[in-house]
Amino acid sequence: MLTKPNHLFDDATRVEAGDSRWQGRTSPDYWAFVGPFGGATAATILRALIEHPQASGDPLTLTVNYCAPIAEGPFDLDVRLIKANRSSQHWCVELAQGAQIATIATAVFAERRASWSHQPATFPQATPFAQVQPYSKAVAPWVKQYDLRFVEDRPDVRSGTKTDNKSGFASAFTKLWIGDRAPRKIDALSLMAMSDAFFGRIFHVRQEMVPFGTVSLTTYFHADADDLAKEDITHLLAVADAKTFHKSYGDQNGELWSPAGRLLATTTQIAYFKA
Amino acid sequence: MLTKPNHLFDDATRVEAGDSRWQGRTSPDYWAFVGPFGGATAATILRALIEHPQASGDPLTLTVNYCAPIAEGPFDLDVRLIKANRSSQHWCVELAQGAQIATIATAVFAERRASWSHQPATFPQATPFAQVQPYSKAVAPWVKQYDLRFVEDRPDVRSGTKTDNKSGFASAFTKLWIGDRAPRKIDALSLMAMSDAFFGRIFHVRQEMVPFGTVSLTTYFHADADDLAKEDITHLLAVADAKTFHKSYGDQNGELWSPAGRLLATTTQIAYFKA
Repeated sequence: MLTKPNHLFDDATRVEAGDSRWQGRTSPDYWAFVGPFGGATAATILRALIEHPQASGDPLTLTVNYCAPIAEGPFDLDVRLIKANRSSQHWCVELAQGAQIATIATAVFAERRASWSHQPATFPQATPFAQVQPYSKAVAPWVKQYDLRFVEDRPDVRSGTKTDNKSGFASAFTKLWIGDRAPRKIDALSLMAMSDAFFGRIFHVRQEMVPFGTVSLTTYFHADADDLAKEDITHLLAVADAKTFHKSYGDQNGELWSPAGRLLATTTQIAYFKA
Repeated sequence: MLTKPNHLFDDATRVEAGDSRWQGRTSPDYWAFVGPFGGATAATILRALIEHPQASGDPLTLTVNYCAPIAEGPFDLDVRLIKANRSSQHWCVELAQGAQIATIATAVFAERRASWSHQPATFPQATPFAQVQPYSKAVAPWVKQYDLRFVEDRPDVRSGTKTDNKSGFASAFTKLWIGDRAPRKIDALSLMAMSDAFFGRIFHVRQEMVPFGTVSLTTYFHADADDLAKEDITHLLAVADAKTFHKSYGDQNGELWSPAGRLLATTTQIAYFKA
């Protein structure tokens, strides 16, 4: 009997349940420069929460602080339910290898009750997914797992800094379609991973690669599992921008949209750079 | 001999050092509707970190998850240094009353080394502070501790919903000057508190008060203590906006600017509402 193999993303973010201590392992498929792709780490943490027998409701927010590099191989996830009430749960997860904590995360899960809805944000206009060429210059393994289609500000990190606006630097803004390379239905796990799938803003602005690492990543979920099931999509439209780079740290803020125009998630991160 | 009395804000956010367990207490001066002003709680947590003997560097990011109401009175702060390396520190703080955890926070401190600087964000144009009338309709005690001067979208929460744009709702965007009512030099503590000093976006959008509570707040600091000392300011220009309200939760994103045009902090939060 044929069984459908797992999607690479699901293999990469697999966790084995423990009591309070769960286990995961890094994936070569989602490897970055000096460690696993931060989005895969964040999604693995989120998966441990979603699959936790005490979990109730949908992810509302996840903040992941990357404390130290994660080495290739297995890691432990210490999962703690900090506080629960009728409609929400507060979680804390520590990812460790041996005695070394590499990542600490806090999350809130919530029962998303029907309410007044209003979406002041404007859907970014974009050339349709099918009409945009996929990005083909991926070097890092994790980038190869995504189908990135840049609508605006396709990165050109090998050209050196251009002086194409009055600041002397290129724009920090990017608009792109993003899906898993092997199509996979968008769920909270892939939203979490994709919220870290933008290239470093500084690469866009300076049009060159510099040493770079995300320090803290926060994603808010504006759609629950029912909403995502109704969207039934395998790619989304994403925008990202930066506000400032100063004294070795810069920010990023992003939005993840369904093709139909629903804002599914917002995300922000602060990252180290050397430049 | 005359001693200068503490600023109310410093009294409100005072902490008493312990070993890993510190103590604070709620302040009637910074009380909100059903508990302390979340910005004061966040600033108290940040103060425990800044005053911690092991603290090194400047605050880079603080995320505060509000798990349960904090009752009037004392609370414990369980402060843990999760990981430190040469240039950064990762902290976790749990605020508890008895056995009940009411708040959990994670923070990163960093040595802010000189680097390339670039500020793509545009300084919001505004009528100067001195030419704007202070907001005088404060009801909650904490609001009275601030000098709020609305440049755009002065809240009018008693008028009921107006249909003054095509969505049928008012704008979620606000621009205001903000300082402590008794002027106090802006530091990381006041930046932290002021990043929660915007009124709920839903109050602006619906132009009415509804049950509301911040669930998670994240602030990134783009200026270190030296930068803030050089600015030497007692008020700042702040903008806030929202992107979506859906199934009982809505977001907020904000920027805190020095009057001279430096982006000091960016902030985002997700909040519960009933509407």
